Amino acid sequence: MVAKIRLYVDHPLGAEQSVPLSRDHAHYLFGVMRQGVGAQVLLFNGRDGEWRAEVAEAGKRGGILTCLEQSAPLRMPPDLWLLFAPIKKARTDFIVEKAAEMGAARIIPVQTDFTNSDRIRQDRLQAHAIEAAEQCGGTFVPEVADLHRLDRLLADWPADRQLVFCDETLAGETGHLDPADRARPGAILIGPEGGFSDAERTRLRGLPFTRSITLGPRILRADTAAVAALTLWQSQLGDWP
Amino acid sequence: MVAKIRLYVDHPLGAEQSVPLSRDHAHYLFGVMRQGVGAQVLLFNGRDGEWRAEVAEAGKRGGILTCLEQSAPLRMPPDLWLLFAPIKKARTDFIVEKAAEMGAARIIPVQTDFTNSDRIRQDRLQAHAIEAAEQCGGTFVPEVADLHRLDRLLADWPADRQLVFCDETLAGETGHLDPADRARPGAILIGPEGGFSDAERTRLRGLPFTRSITLGPRILRADTAAVAALTLWQSQLGDWP
Repeated sequence: MVAKIRLYVDHPLGAEQSVPLSRDHAHYLFGVMRQGVGAQVLLFNGRDGEWRAEVAEAGKRGGILTCLEQSAPLRMPPDLWLLFAPIKKARTDFIVEKAAEMGAARIIPVQTDFTNSDRIRQDRLQAHAIEAAEQCGGTFVPEVADLHRLDRLLADWPADRQLVFCDETLAGETGHLDPADRARPGAILIGPEGGFSDAERTRLRGLPFTRSITLGPRILRADTAAVAALTLWQSQLGDWP
Repeated sequence: MVAKIRLYVDHPLGAEQSVPLSRDHAHYLFGVMRQGVGAQVLLFNGRDGEWRAEVAEAGKRGGILTCLEQSAPLRMPPDLWLLFAPIKKARTDFIVEKAAEMGAARIIPVQTDFTNSDRIRQDRLQAHAIEAAEQCGGTFVPEVADLHRLDRLLADWPADRQLVFCDETLAGETGHLDPADRARPGAILIGPEGGFSDAERTRLRGLPFTRSITLGPRILRADTAAVAALTLWQSQLGDWP
């Protein structure tokens, strides 16, 4: 099996389009992967689908690719946001990677009452989302937003977007998605390891656009909860058949 | 918030039961966590539920705890196995951790046609399952089996146990669980990064106890697929309400 090399480029893609390579990509493609002029790779930019391209020039600090033909159309995920409270570095990276794989359209780190961090490395998290799309055959890359305060996000919340609130205190009770909400834009909110504060929980439950669901009788880590909630949403309201 | 210390011990637990501490646990409890005589911790052994216990003796190389009262009953997960093909070390560890969190009763690493590794560190994976149970409030620890060959496992398969086969070539088609299978013991099979071989796929589809399901239109990494499939099973056939 020859591994297909897929690269995300921030450049327009189209028939016979020339695409310059960044220094990092040139290093990866020609240095690490030992490719040269004539080699074929797959390119995507999150807008124009996936294109088969050929190396036209190869250098140590850059190169040029030429697009040959579109190999896959742009495939947009459903209009789903994932809101999560940043946790330890490795698990935060993991949540972003998984959200990209599972088809979240937008990823928003949120600061809650029990969130320890007051800033994130947005650029690093965005790079993780790109890498996940490269690895997983995605043609779309979710935007990773900067850290938002949860209370302010809720104050400005668009009323038509349903906010699915994974409430760990619901364990044992019924709490599930409703197929009638299939047409609505959605969002999933995953709390930090310490859960939500009582004030936050009371407020969330009282908002007209939230829906509380349970993720079962066991306590899940935040990263597990993110994948589980994305699975429920995509399989019941999203684009899983 | 005071973090509750939970320890797994391989020792009977019951009223007034004395429990000796291993060197590792003594180091953790008295050295790292700075606890001493009179401190309370939670113990579980996978059989007797969770017990509140008090430190009776504390030393550098060991100690003795005395059980006070049962703080939670034993909670068994549904009769669900997770079969997965070992992948890179960090992601294999992760699958075991997530399977324990998500309530798999038994975890079986399997060797498939496209599996690279021919052995696993069973003891290390078992330790990950224990750590996940300690972290997540579980009172049960799934057994991590040694590496099995998939073909032999299938040859000896118990006919009443449904094997849910996550078939990535199904993307776009319908493939889902059937509520009628709720009473059956179950198993989930996650393939390696390269997928299953054609021979394996043909065989799996032809077996009377398998059911093919899809995990959506995007390609998922094996660790993501494991959490997604466990979510579908637990929410539709398992112990989520």
